[in-house]
Amino acid sequence: METHGFTFLAHGNTPLANRLRLLISCPDRPGIVAAVSRFLADHEANIVASDQYTMDPDGGLFYLRMEFDVPNLLEAAPRIEQDFVRIAAEFQMEYQLNPAAKKKRIAIFVSKEDHCLLELLWQWRSGAFFADIAMVIGNHPDLRQHAESFDIPYHHVPVTPELKADVERTHLQLLKDANVDLVILARYMQIISPSFIQQYHNRIINIHHSFLPAFVGGNPYKQAYHRGVKIIGATAHYVTEELDAGPIIEQDVQRVNHKNDIDSLKRIGGMIERAVLARAVGWHLEDRILVHGNKTVVFT
Amino acid sequence: METHGFTFLAHGNTPLANRLRLLISCPDRPGIVAAVSRFLADHEANIVASDQYTMDPDGGLFYLRMEFDVPNLLEAAPRIEQDFVRIAAEFQMEYQLNPAAKKKRIAIFVSKEDHCLLELLWQWRSGAFFADIAMVIGNHPDLRQHAESFDIPYHHVPVTPELKADVERTHLQLLKDANVDLVILARYMQIISPSFIQQYHNRIINIHHSFLPAFVGGNPYKQAYHRGVKIIGATAHYVTEELDAGPIIEQDVQRVNHKNDIDSLKRIGGMIERAVLARAVGWHLEDRILVHGNKTVVFT
Amino acid sequence: METHGFTFLAHGNTPLANRLRLLISCPDRPGIVAAVSRFLADHEANIVASDQYTMDPDGGLFYLRMEFDVPNLLEAAPRIEQDFVRIAAEFQMEYQLNPAAKKKRIAIFVSKEDHCLLELLWQWRSGAFFADIAMVIGNHPDLRQHAESFDIPYHHVPVTPELKADVERTHLQLLKDANVDLVILARYMQIISPSFIQQYHNRIINIHHSFLPAFVGGNPYKQAYHRGVKIIGATAHYVTEELDAGPIIEQDVQRVNHKNDIDSLKRIGGMIERAVLARAVGWHLEDRILVHGNKTVVFT
Amino acid sequence: METHGFTFLAHGNTPLANRLRLLISCPDRPGIVAAVSRFLADHEANIVASDQYTMDPDGGLFYLRMEFDVPNLLEAAPRIEQDFVRIAAEFQMEYQLNPAAKKKRIAIFVSKEDHCLLELLWQWRSGAFFADIAMVIGNHPDLRQHAESFDIPYHHVPVTPELKADVERTHLQLLKDANVDLVILARYMQIISPSFIQQYHNRIINIHHSFLPAFVGGNPYKQAYHRGVKIIGATAHYVTEELDAGPIIEQDVQRVNHKNDIDSLKRIGGMIERAVLARAVGWHLEDRILVHGNKTVVFT
Repeated sequence: METHGFTFLAHGNTPLANRLRLLISCPDRPGIVAAVSRFLADHEANIVASDQYTMDPDGGLFYLRMEFDVPNLLEAAPRIEQDFVRIAAEFQMEYQLNPAAKKKRIAIFVSKEDHCLLELLWQWRSGAFFADIAMVIGNHPDLRQHAESFDIPYHHVPVTPELKADVERTHLQLLKDANVDLVILARYMQIISPSFIQQYHNRIINIHHSFLPAFVGGNPYKQAYHRGVKIIGATAHYVTEELDAGPIIEQDVQRVNHKNDIDSLKRIGGMIERAVLARAVGWHLEDRILVHGNKTVVFT
Repeated sequence: METHGFTFLAHGNTPLANRLRLLISCPDRPGIVAAVSRFLADHEANIVASDQYTMDPDGGLFYLRMEFDVPNLLEAAPRIEQDFVRIAAEFQMEYQLNPAAKKKRIAIFVSKEDHCLLELLWQWRSGAFFADIAMVIGNHPDLRQHAESFDIPYHHVPVTPELKADVERTHLQLLKDANVDLVILARYMQIISPSFIQQYHNRIINIHHSFLPAFVGGNPYKQAYHRGVKIIGATAHYVTEELDAGPIIEQDVQRVNHKNDIDSLKRIGGMIERAVLARAVGWHLEDRILVHGNKTVVFT
Repeated sequence: METHGFTFLAHGNTPLANRLRLLISCPDRPGIVAAVSRFLADHEANIVASDQYTMDPDGGLFYLRMEFDVPNLLEAAPRIEQDFVRIAAEFQMEYQLNPAAKKKRIAIFVSKEDHCLLELLWQWRSGAFFADIAMVIGNHPDLRQHAESFDIPYHHVPVTPELKADVERTHLQLLKDANVDLVILARYMQIISPSFIQQYHNRIINIHHSFLPAFVGGNPYKQAYHRGVKIIGATAHYVTEELDAGPIIEQDVQRVNHKNDIDSLKRIGGMIERAVLARAVGWHLEDRILVHGNKTVVFT
Repeated sequence: METHGFTFLAHGNTPLANRLRLLISCPDRPGIVAAVSRFLADHEANIVASDQYTMDPDGGLFYLRMEFDVPNLLEAAPRIEQDFVRIAAEFQMEYQLNPAAKKKRIAIFVSKEDHCLLELLWQWRSGAFFADIAMVIGNHPDLRQHAESFDIPYHHVPVTPELKADVERTHLQLLKDANVDLVILARYMQIISPSFIQQYHNRIINIHHSFLPAFVGGNPYKQAYHRGVKIIGATAHYVTEELDAGPIIEQDVQRVNHKNDIDSLKRIGGMIERAVLARAVGWHLEDRILVHGNKTVVFT
């Protein structure tokens, strides 16, 4: 976990203008909450949400998420940031101190399927996501019109085995130029390279169209059909180097039966996928997810 | 909310022996968490769980639940209790400071239906409930054998309109003699009097066999059948003077269809009832429920 | 139930071109299925789906839905229709014999909320609905762009108390001119008059934003918030003269908790509404719904 | 699928005394339903339930389940059975013709976990299962008291690697002596030998404590914990020679989160297991399950 600064703190008078989100993970020991609370009291912070989780009371790890308002945050921020460094050092914390008013910037990767992209665009327009969608990148041209009808730039970057290195360079340049914070693979169906993953560690969300770890890999609905499962699902997870094995953020399922052929499984599954992906994205944007090893702590 | 003392604190070496649960509700203002945390730090408490909720950031109500371990709680308890009085006064708190090792004592009221009683007895025997079941009280003799096979005393207290006052006196005497903390109406099907309710304010849990507020009153499955609903449910709530209108603790539902006649709705509903009631009881026993007005805050 | 003829039977070679759907309700007695099956065998029909339901084996009602393919349906249709009249008379059947290839024609009524409209348009474009959307009618101009971006005509028909009779005349004329079969109230929020309802008996589907019969009438999410329910829902039903009391087609629910304010209930509920409405519309379009009294038999 | 005869047809006047259940699977072609319906009409049968499913309209498989009442079934049975043989031959049917009044006989295999056994015993006593529970067989003595308190014989048959062949002989003799039709592995935790499985082909139901095909094999809750899934499940399936790979009958799931340690996953999972197993057993007892290859068609 890295510390993000206040550079993009929104000026002005949004309701979130004075709000910070603090995420901590550290070895558990007495006094952490007291130290943090004292620090917040000293800065006249008003805590509006607090969640904590100790993995194991005897010598385990401690996770904390706090949302709090600080009067005149813009003025107070440098001192807050500076003072917290001491606490973080004392308790060996990894932490983030994120201004709620700073919009994260999103790039959505797509292929030909439109349902996940449309759900994200639609929820974004309805105000569900406090974020900027900087671009949509597709390896096919099919979804250009969808993106552009929401006034989002669309970049068609075809992918072929020979072009792989070029494609990745193009992708990374596009993301860098637009200050992208979060990459969403909305049924992108292409393998992401290890070097790309490292540069966006725990900031690439994929939607896999099965209830992981069942049906890893290709054609999960076909696999589900042939296994004769009575429930199908979808899984949103952070992308790691091992395929479909990254930390799971959210899953959901729906009941099916023998009447459902592969096409109807795809249709039903598509409804689950878009809902699961949208929830995962929303939680990421609100700094609700802490990753430890290959698992997530989600404070909802 | 009343303050319960440490009288029944378990001596000895259970893993919970040093654990306290603190529940607070008070007007929201800056400094509450800091004050509580400082207090806990001063007593060398190690916080193992913390949940808070502010109903409205601008001038609303604040709810807090903390679980923490204190070295040598038995020795430390009197000073902790004393010191907290000052904080509570400063922030106008209603609060509870409950030793986790103190088992609550339960009385289960039943009529003729066995499924909710059996679920409670069974989960209790499996260790899901840290509590004593002091007695089962039935207005019919039918379920005596069930209670006694779990070594729980069964009191048959017939109810007739003429006997109402006597019945209530008998009930209250039985509860008082056995130091009962929690009354569970496990499909008891009788109206509880206002004076009884007042004596066990927010300590009587009823299971209503519908998804409240739909189908208040008698024969909810018959009502559901005739309305043609596609989903049925059950509701666990604290009992208040208005029938089926008390604070809802937990609800759950299941899908049904036109093929389900009233008998099958009852059978399916019975499964929901027992699960919902068991969850509500578990949360009450772990001090996870705060009541404000006619609603509950459940920290799960 | 009325008999719809073959007038709009699609010419040509769609996979559905030879398929009929037969819906029957009649008093139960031995021999119904045998008579129908013999009739189908005589016409060389190949049954591809069959569902039946008897409300009560002793003297109740019998419901049947069959899908079957007939070679050269267009040629065979008149004789099939004629022959079935005798069977229907013998068993006092109400029935429909609907060619699957005949697209139903839809009018969607909206107000200002876009989520239900967008879901319908989107699923329609994705091929989930075999139907024509003839028009969108709004009492506000807000959603014109949504309709028109799918190339659907939008009629803005403002509603004021004084204009009620004129409005209804306009509505009915629009529907009649476009041969509309099905009216969908996609959060239309206006009362439909009894005479309108009679002309589209069991052909007006409304989405109510609560788990009926809980929270009938206005502001159901506000009602749900104040009652403190732990689950919210939505209900698709045919519109009858009594408000929110028509035959329920489909319901669904989602878990909420004390943290959800009215706005977040609305957001979560909106997701349920669009899914429930889309399922109900799909079943209606596939002739899967039989209405008896105030209840539905849905053969899914 | 084998044909079961009428040998155990209940004499007398139960409501089911005249009811038969017909299950068919055969290659699909026109005329099957007509032939069956004509046959039933000729025998004055009154159809009370009918479900059919065609896997693929063009040359696939056809599945049918019918429940019907025949006047004086006991007298009519031999001729019905005889006449149906011709239809079955004509359409190459595999079929069962089961008298509903014939109680299936169950043996439940257990180890040390009590929740699945108790659920089955309890639902059986409440009338949910129309069956005889002939015995409980345990490889440990722990659950004897549970079985005997329901007046079910308990056989303690210890299992050790050296004794495997003896154990199987003992099991099979016990089942044969008691005319057992259905074997339920209620968390038995032992591998069943191929020869045993062949003798009870599609008549051994196992409950696996995961959402198959995720977490095949041992310790699925531990596997689920380490993978960090957000939903856990259970699967009831017929036992085949490949471990945890037999035809799935029913599955269900429940949401969990990072707070759930392995013990709490086990507790939550146990609730799912018992519900899933009970549903699967109920469907088997009512002849609602048809197996094709490694999948089930469940007519519910």
